[in-house]
Amino acid sequence: MESFAIQPRKGLMVVLSGPSGAGKNSIISSLVEADPNRVHSISLTTRAPRPHEVDGVSYHFTTREHFEQLIQKGEVLEYDEYCGSYYGTPREPAVQHVNAGRDVLFDLTVSGALQIREKCPDAILVFITPPSLQELVSRLSTRGTETEDVVVHRLETAKRELRMAADFDYCVENAVLEDAVDDISAIIRAEKRRASRLYIDDGVDKTV
Amino acid sequence: MESFAIQPRKGLMVVLSGPSGAGKNSIISSLVEADPNRVHSISLTTRAPRPHEVDGVSYHFTTREHFEQLIQKGEVLEYDEYCGSYYGTPREPAVQHVNAGRDVLFDLTVSGALQIREKCPDAILVFITPPSLQELVSRLSTRGTETEDVVVHRLETAKRELRMAADFDYCVENAVLEDAVDDISAIIRAEKRRASRLYIDDGVDKTV
Repeated sequence: MESFAIQPRKGLMVVLSGPSGAGKNSIISSLVEADPNRVHSISLTTRAPRPHEVDGVSYHFTTREHFEQLIQKGEVLEYDEYCGSYYGTPREPAVQHVNAGRDVLFDLTVSGALQIREKCPDAILVFITPPSLQELVSRLSTRGTETEDVVVHRLETAKRELRMAADFDYCVENAVLEDAVDDISAIIRAEKRRASRLYIDDGVDKTV
Repeated sequence: MESFAIQPRKGLMVVLSGPSGAGKNSIISSLVEADPNRVHSISLTTRAPRPHEVDGVSYHFTTREHFEQLIQKGEVLEYDEYCGSYYGTPREPAVQHVNAGRDVLFDLTVSGALQIREKCPDAILVFITPPSLQELVSRLSTRGTETEDVVVHRLETAKRELRMAADFDYCVENAVLEDAVDDISAIIRAEKRRASRLYIDDGVDKTV
């Protein structure tokens, strides 16, 4: 009766976004590995799987017809069309994880992140920046899966996106992977202590 | 030229508040011990020093006349009168620490915390709760410096204050000291990554 119960009600939705090549995926892998209570949201796409990609691991692969049906039913939290294919986030798995108290990590474009904020105002938006444009070029180049034109296009996009960092809640520089991971772990821990997210049962009748 | 510099501009002002006996002082001592970049704001009071208290350590002790002069000059960030004595926070040392990039930790009443928020909107307000009222009674009792009337009065105040936790940015339960300290360290680390606190120099001409 006379006890203070302070409980985060749900898991958190944590969206990582920022220039391609900023290392979002490595950060999410480390975060998920470090805590079994964290899961990586798997995107849905209509593009063809690349040779090494397994359905349900890198992406859920589906048809345009099915993707458009899901959009109609409000079952897609955010989506975009890129190079003629849809990419999006299915609503249902994210909601289930969060309701079960698990934190869900999303790797999204800036546009996707801002769409999520509109549908889920509680979501935490983190902008990940690479340490330098030079470093970004070399990360994109050594990946080796893109043509030079694509690299140039992505750098221009990266510059535009950087100016959008101000619309995010947090901005984390990924110069050293471990530091970026620790920054985001701290952000998750801190956000679980946000007064607005807590339910306080102090055993006191609030109607008095 | 082509580099992203991301720099927290200043130190943070972190205000810990909450029921008397919630352990704010132990938390601040641990935080300051763990990082030389953190300092404990020392309050100014017109009450008489207790036997073990040293001027400039527990409090700065001063006269009513001097305290009122400082209020007039806007040199007091927050203050209150309690049992006939003034207690307040001098502005100048806090501003100097923050400008030098040091984080300043304040141990304040709820009223003091809300006054600080008005004068310093960037300040981070953390409400510290004891694990239970029962525990709070025993912490206040074993302190042994208060009469029973004072303990009863403080418990009533504590109940009222608990309902104010919602006005704070964060709410941290001090059940295990180390956990509370880690929570607040995470809050400080996270707040240093807030997009609104960062200066991003991406080498891009913003006027384009």
